[in-house]
Amino acid sequence: MDHMDENPEDIMARFEELSVLETEFEEAELEILRKAEALHAPLYKKRAEFVANIPHFWTLVFEQAPPEIDNFIQPSDAKVFAECFDSFEVSRFELDDPKGSPRSFSLKFGFKENEYFEDKVLEKKFWFRRTKDWQGLVSEPVKIHWKKGKDLTSGLTDAACKLGEERKKLAADTSNGEARKKEATTKAYKELAQKIETSSDASVSFFGIFAFVSGYRWVSAEESEQVTKEDNDKLEKIKRGEEVEDDDEDEEDPQDYQEIEVFPGGDEVATIIAEDMWPNAIKYYKATFDEEEDDEELSELDVMDEDSDAENQGDSDSEVDIRALVGKGRNSAQPPAKKQRKA
Amino acid sequence: MDHMDENPEDIMARFEELSVLETEFEEAELEILRKAEALHAPLYKKRAEFVANIPHFWTLVFEQAPPEIDNFIQPSDAKVFAECFDSFEVSRFELDDPKGSPRSFSLKFGFKENEYFEDKVLEKKFWFRRTKDWQGLVSEPVKIHWKKGKDLTSGLTDAACKLGEERKKLAADTSNGEARKKEATTKAYKELAQKIETSSDASVSFFGIFAFVSGYRWVSAEESEQVTKEDNDKLEKIKRGEEVEDDDEDEEDPQDYQEIEVFPGGDEVATIIAEDMWPNAIKYYKATFDEEEDDEELSELDVMDEDSDAENQGDSDSEVDIRALVGKGRNSAQPPAKKQRKA
Repeated sequence: MDHMDENPEDIMARFEELSVLETEFEEAELEILRKAEALHAPLYKKRAEFVANIPHFWTLVFEQAPPEIDNFIQPSDAKVFAECFDSFEVSRFELDDPKGSPRSFSLKFGFKENEYFEDKVLEKKFWFRRTKDWQGLVSEPVKIHWKKGKDLTSGLTDAACKLGEERKKLAADTSNGEARKKEATTKAYKELAQKIETSSDASVSFFGIFAFVSGYRWVSAEESEQVTKEDNDKLEKIKRGEEVEDDDEDEEDPQDYQEIEVFPGGDEVATIIAEDMWPNAIKYYKATFDEEEDDEELSELDVMDEDSDAENQGDSDSEVDIRALVGKGRNSAQPPAKKQRKA
Repeated sequence: MDHMDENPEDIMARFEELSVLETEFEEAELEILRKAEALHAPLYKKRAEFVANIPHFWTLVFEQAPPEIDNFIQPSDAKVFAECFDSFEVSRFELDDPKGSPRSFSLKFGFKENEYFEDKVLEKKFWFRRTKDWQGLVSEPVKIHWKKGKDLTSGLTDAACKLGEERKKLAADTSNGEARKKEATTKAYKELAQKIETSSDASVSFFGIFAFVSGYRWVSAEESEQVTKEDNDKLEKIKRGEEVEDDDEDEEDPQDYQEIEVFPGGDEVATIIAEDMWPNAIKYYKATFDEEEDDEELSELDVMDEDSDAENQGDSDSEVDIRALVGKGRNSAQPPAKKQRKA
């Protein structure tokens, strides 16, 4: 049997059957996520208790972040992390919510009293949601109460929050598509758009991630539930061997949902933090000391390297070595990765 | 409490406790792998039965491979895949073996009668093993019975197999370290080294992966078991609060194990195939048709584009479009990714 001999109806039928199988795979993935979380939960608890006594644990973990994350941490962000980043937690807050998804998660950053912002906790939630043409993580802008003159995002997080409020109002008043069109005409939209345009993309603070909304567009819980329901209905029909209509023609016009985004790639950054850095935090922490062992014995860990420290703190545009800032001493033998955001 | 106030003994003790916790995380990961496999197994079976009736299913999946894999598939490899790649299977063959690892897996490629080699099945096994300083996947070279003048690897797989045989003989006669030193003096080693040197790194056939041994060095099951046993003993001591000796001083000299490798990165390529392409094969297969939808309706799928077909098959140095080769018609609107191996 070769593809050339087949008629389009057979191909369509096969596609539908494959979609059913694909859904079963997706169900298995979600179940694996639940089982993984159940196995990890007691370990995360144990780890949290243990690392509460390790100074700068999470700062050092983030210092060792893989390049995909590290590229987004500016020297001034690293300074904040070194001075007051105190605790960190990832939670899958919709794990057993039948309307939610085990793929949803939140990143909860805890901070000590500091000179930058009032907040002791900054929690960023990412919801896994779907539209007819897309699925992925969306989020709501999180307000950071910056102290005067200390806003590392130069007003981007504030402006994103304002637009977020506007969006909520519009959503309450109008239909999905209409609300999106109206949103782009609001003052809040224009202000945020202008701020994004004037900010240098290469130097947006890591704290800009708190303004992240979506790599596609904002998707409400209601819309996502509706789409999921329709998809399930369609799959049931296919399973029963009934015909399903092709809804290709009512695809969204990308022009309708072209949104502005403070922190493009925020969903990917968050996913790497949640899926790699969070479960592997001890490995990342220990890697700090592996680097140091290149130059010196572990017993010499506490020796301060005055030169490298002064050099790093003196010039805020240059590379900041968190280990130096938190008093872990000298630089590693290898040159650190450049803290430049990818184009 | 700050790090600066601590003494090195406290830091060492904390490191040991962290290592215990890290081991518990690793145990959880292995258990997740087992649970994931149990959930996937019936789906893989169902999928295998279903796709056996879909012409070129696996060829099309590999055509849609992510760049990390695609970069290793040369135009001549793509031609072989299009002509005779028939079935594919990943299995975790040490899943419940107390001496093995759920991280070990095999890639089993099935082929139809073809003009390139005699083999109907080429199976590549990757064992997850450890030394005192390293852990990862190792493999044994797999013999491909190339037909006359058809060896896409220009003798690399044959030479790797010869060295593999030599290694086995030496391992039977001598200690680990000694065998490695002797190996580098053998005729088989020199022949393979020379072949690797003269082959252009950028154009090694994907079939070179069957010659892959290790990203570090060959590690035997016995050595890995011994290291695992020693590690477990050490952890038990730490748990009982006993002192453990620091064995930093007997680290291996990297000069001792500098090995030659036909297919550097073979472990990473295999891992992406096993962890991403294998569970997500349906998504990759369907992506073939998403691309086509850019230009045409699904119902026009079978229309052959004579021009693009002739163009692709006429020049073996240029990009080969598997979809064209297997009769799936025209190129996508987007230019295909360049089939160049990364430096």
